[in-house]
Amino acid sequence: MTRKAAIIGGGVIGGGWAARFLLNGWDVAIFDPDPQAERKIGEVLDNARRALPALYDRALPPEGRLSWHDDLASAVADADWVQESVPETLALKHKVLGQLGALAPANAVIGSSTSGFKPSELNAEGARAIVAHPFNPVYLLPLIELVGEADTCARASTLLREVGCYPLTLRKEIDAHIADRLLEAVWRESLWLVKDGIATTEEIDEAIRMGFGIRWAQMGLFETYRIAGGEAGMKHFMSQFGPALSWPWTKLMDVPEFNDELVDLIASQSDSQSGHMTIRELERLRDDNIVGMLRALRRTGTGAGGVITAHEAALPAPLPADLPVTADRQVPTSWTDYNGHMNDAEYLRAASDATDRFIEMIGADAAYVAAGHSFFTVETHTRYLAEVHAGDRLRITTQVIEGAGKRMHLFHRMTRADGELAATVEVMLLHVDLKSRATCPPGPAVAANLSQYAAAHAGLPAEGIGRHVGERSKASPQTEPA
Amino acid sequence: MTRKAAIIGGGVIGGGWAARFLLNGWDVAIFDPDPQAERKIGEVLDNARRALPALYDRALPPEGRLSWHDDLASAVADADWVQESVPETLALKHKVLGQLGALAPANAVIGSSTSGFKPSELNAEGARAIVAHPFNPVYLLPLIELVGEADTCARASTLLREVGCYPLTLRKEIDAHIADRLLEAVWRESLWLVKDGIATTEEIDEAIRMGFGIRWAQMGLFETYRIAGGEAGMKHFMSQFGPALSWPWTKLMDVPEFNDELVDLIASQSDSQSGHMTIRELERLRDDNIVGMLRALRRTGTGAGGVITAHEAALPAPLPADLPVTADRQVPTSWTDYNGHMNDAEYLRAASDATDRFIEMIGADAAYVAAGHSFFTVETHTRYLAEVHAGDRLRITTQVIEGAGKRMHLFHRMTRADGELAATVEVMLLHVDLKSRATCPPGPAVAANLSQYAAAHAGLPAEGIGRHVGERSKASPQTEPA
Repeated sequence: MTRKAAIIGGGVIGGGWAARFLLNGWDVAIFDPDPQAERKIGEVLDNARRALPALYDRALPPEGRLSWHDDLASAVADADWVQESVPETLALKHKVLGQLGALAPANAVIGSSTSGFKPSELNAEGARAIVAHPFNPVYLLPLIELVGEADTCARASTLLREVGCYPLTLRKEIDAHIADRLLEAVWRESLWLVKDGIATTEEIDEAIRMGFGIRWAQMGLFETYRIAGGEAGMKHFMSQFGPALSWPWTKLMDVPEFNDELVDLIASQSDSQSGHMTIRELERLRDDNIVGMLRALRRTGTGAGGVITAHEAALPAPLPADLPVTADRQVPTSWTDYNGHMNDAEYLRAASDATDRFIEMIGADAAYVAAGHSFFTVETHTRYLAEVHAGDRLRITTQVIEGAGKRMHLFHRMTRADGELAATVEVMLLHVDLKSRATCPPGPAVAANLSQYAAAHAGLPAEGIGRHVGERSKASPQTEPA
Repeated sequence: MTRKAAIIGGGVIGGGWAARFLLNGWDVAIFDPDPQAERKIGEVLDNARRALPALYDRALPPEGRLSWHDDLASAVADADWVQESVPETLALKHKVLGQLGALAPANAVIGSSTSGFKPSELNAEGARAIVAHPFNPVYLLPLIELVGEADTCARASTLLREVGCYPLTLRKEIDAHIADRLLEAVWRESLWLVKDGIATTEEIDEAIRMGFGIRWAQMGLFETYRIAGGEAGMKHFMSQFGPALSWPWTKLMDVPEFNDELVDLIASQSDSQSGHMTIRELERLRDDNIVGMLRALRRTGTGAGGVITAHEAALPAPLPADLPVTADRQVPTSWTDYNGHMNDAEYLRAASDATDRFIEMIGADAAYVAAGHSFFTVETHTRYLAEVHAGDRLRITTQVIEGAGKRMHLFHRMTRADGELAATVEVMLLHVDLKSRATCPPGPAVAANLSQYAAAHAGLPAEGIGRHVGERSKASPQTEPA
């Protein structure tokens, strides 16, 4: 049965939560008194639809139903999750969380997006909320910090994993949880650096993203330092840098005075650093970068990359069809090129993934490969028939032209969501022994599955196969992507 | 004339500097009293050769000459750059930097890798060094913090850009420069979190790499917060979070006592977090992740990605040959698959880049595309003839089979460094008007260049063209990569 989330206020953060749930198939009910809420959250949803599905090599479930509400009661009715993201004042949190506790189903998780308040503070007047602290953009970054009652946090973790998040449950409640304590330390130090004229906001950003920021995105602080310690290990590293604790390496024994002068200084430096781009442009650039880096981390399964592949494995399989559907995915911006459409090489990337999927379907899976056999591609032929753009949904069906002995000849048809045939890809593969790297017949089970498909597909048409490049004929395509 | 760098001590850091210079064509002379130096630095060089060239789509210059020295004088003779990376004690720095100042050429940059000392401290006894503070792995992370005498820093910046670094020159000297102040703040806060039992080292790493670490890798702190401020802007963001400065959001008004108990706690948690991997395995995983993320950032030219593409544009062009060389590059690990070799789709990725390069060569460059015309691929055919592995160097030559009117038929030959023909890729492209997306003849200059190549290549053989997939013939390849 479809799950339901109720989003209570919060603009960008609430919108990010809404997108995370909605694009994972949940129904989402929004209560946000801000007259601009529908526009603001709509813009977040547009960004999310552009970025989140591009993290995956398979389609996310169909979107849930989005509804807007003027009263809390109808918003939270039947909700599995209620997320409060109102402004960061304790009195307001008490009021809203008190009402939510009374109105929401007893088994619903009530999460607060608070950056700094502890559950004991949030629930001081009888509410039953836990801290569920997300990170912007909520639809892309998997981390959710959970603090509060143990059973509720456990239920919350299960639900969050269903929507591709990484729940991190704190052992004890503490002001600002974990990540914001680190961010606050860096923020304070950075304010000093700007105030003292050591560096501008842009120089500080470069000092982060040209160096340790890239390390932290994939391993964090301690594993990075473990490597720095080298063969001598973590103790050696600490003995090296331990003394620095007593050196004047930070000004954090003191706090800069937060006055208009400092605010104006930061704001004006930020304007000259980033003022040439609108917030929307910055958001799209940020999302494209994050999608690209997370897709890179998928390769090794490190950190957030591992979260995505684990989530993807749990996504619903495509519906059955006359021909097996071997791909159903959204085109990431990183697949497009200077001609403003999907680069020619990415057509084969999508087809190659489809070939892998079909090979799995006939039983040549990871275990089969680990046991020493696989299929190698010996030849491919691609006809580019229609342009494909970032965000387009691609569906690939696979037809077996020949499947006997060690030979497997496949014919992929790639269609856009509008039904247009974007490309056909012919692939000849040979079955090989991975030790000798020489060809050999597949195992009996794989051979049987393959010949079944071959027999079933034998009668079907396969327009445009057997062409060689440059052949002039009706089947010759007219224009397509470079 | 070949430049020379002298590397004075430093194990992993010195080795990283050596790799950065050596792989960019500099001669490198090493002085390191550590009896293990040759092995340690050799291992860093192995890692660097595996990772650094994979950042680029073009080959780096041929490696320079590496030499080992027992005396400072011969090491620093004729050096353009002398880099000191001895242990972090001021007395030792004074001794070594004093000798280097006397022995090194007057115009040589003398840089110190110090994490925290100021130039005024380093040069207190008459040395002439500047701070040139790198970040591990030095061969991959572009950031170098420069502090010291202005003219020397300016010369240092020029040299560092030549080897693909991003020099950041500080406006004033300060203990620990910029990045280490931020790192020290996070380090101190993290020690508190572990000491107080709020989180383990692993939980802190997850709190970083599952969330803000991914943001920082591409935009840093202030630009990220500018986005968080949304339409209301940076001032709005600061007005929201300014008050937190007076809240108990960090414990940095105090410093944790650095005793054996704390060291053991951190070390044992780090062991259970990462102890299942050796340091070498962690280094290779880190490097694969960083290469993958930096290649993703190349797409948008953001931060370190922009540094790589700028550096690449300045790399030497391939040598002339009978057929134009349209690619000469190293295969990144991310291009390989579960069969332990380059994935079939990446053969077309490499060929597609080669096609783009050839299109530039005939004058259809970025300006030509911006003016509204380009070539679209309509058909490709690939024969997979030999396996290619991570780290292999690939060279592609391009032959024009047909180049007249709006048609361009190319034949790419892809060879490994051992001369083995790995693949041939046939590509048919049509020239198009980017507004109407319809075919049309190219401009006169492009047409003339193309027909010149066509005429020059007309007589040459083109083995295996005109095949269709599955065709049975001598030309049929025997086994290859999936």
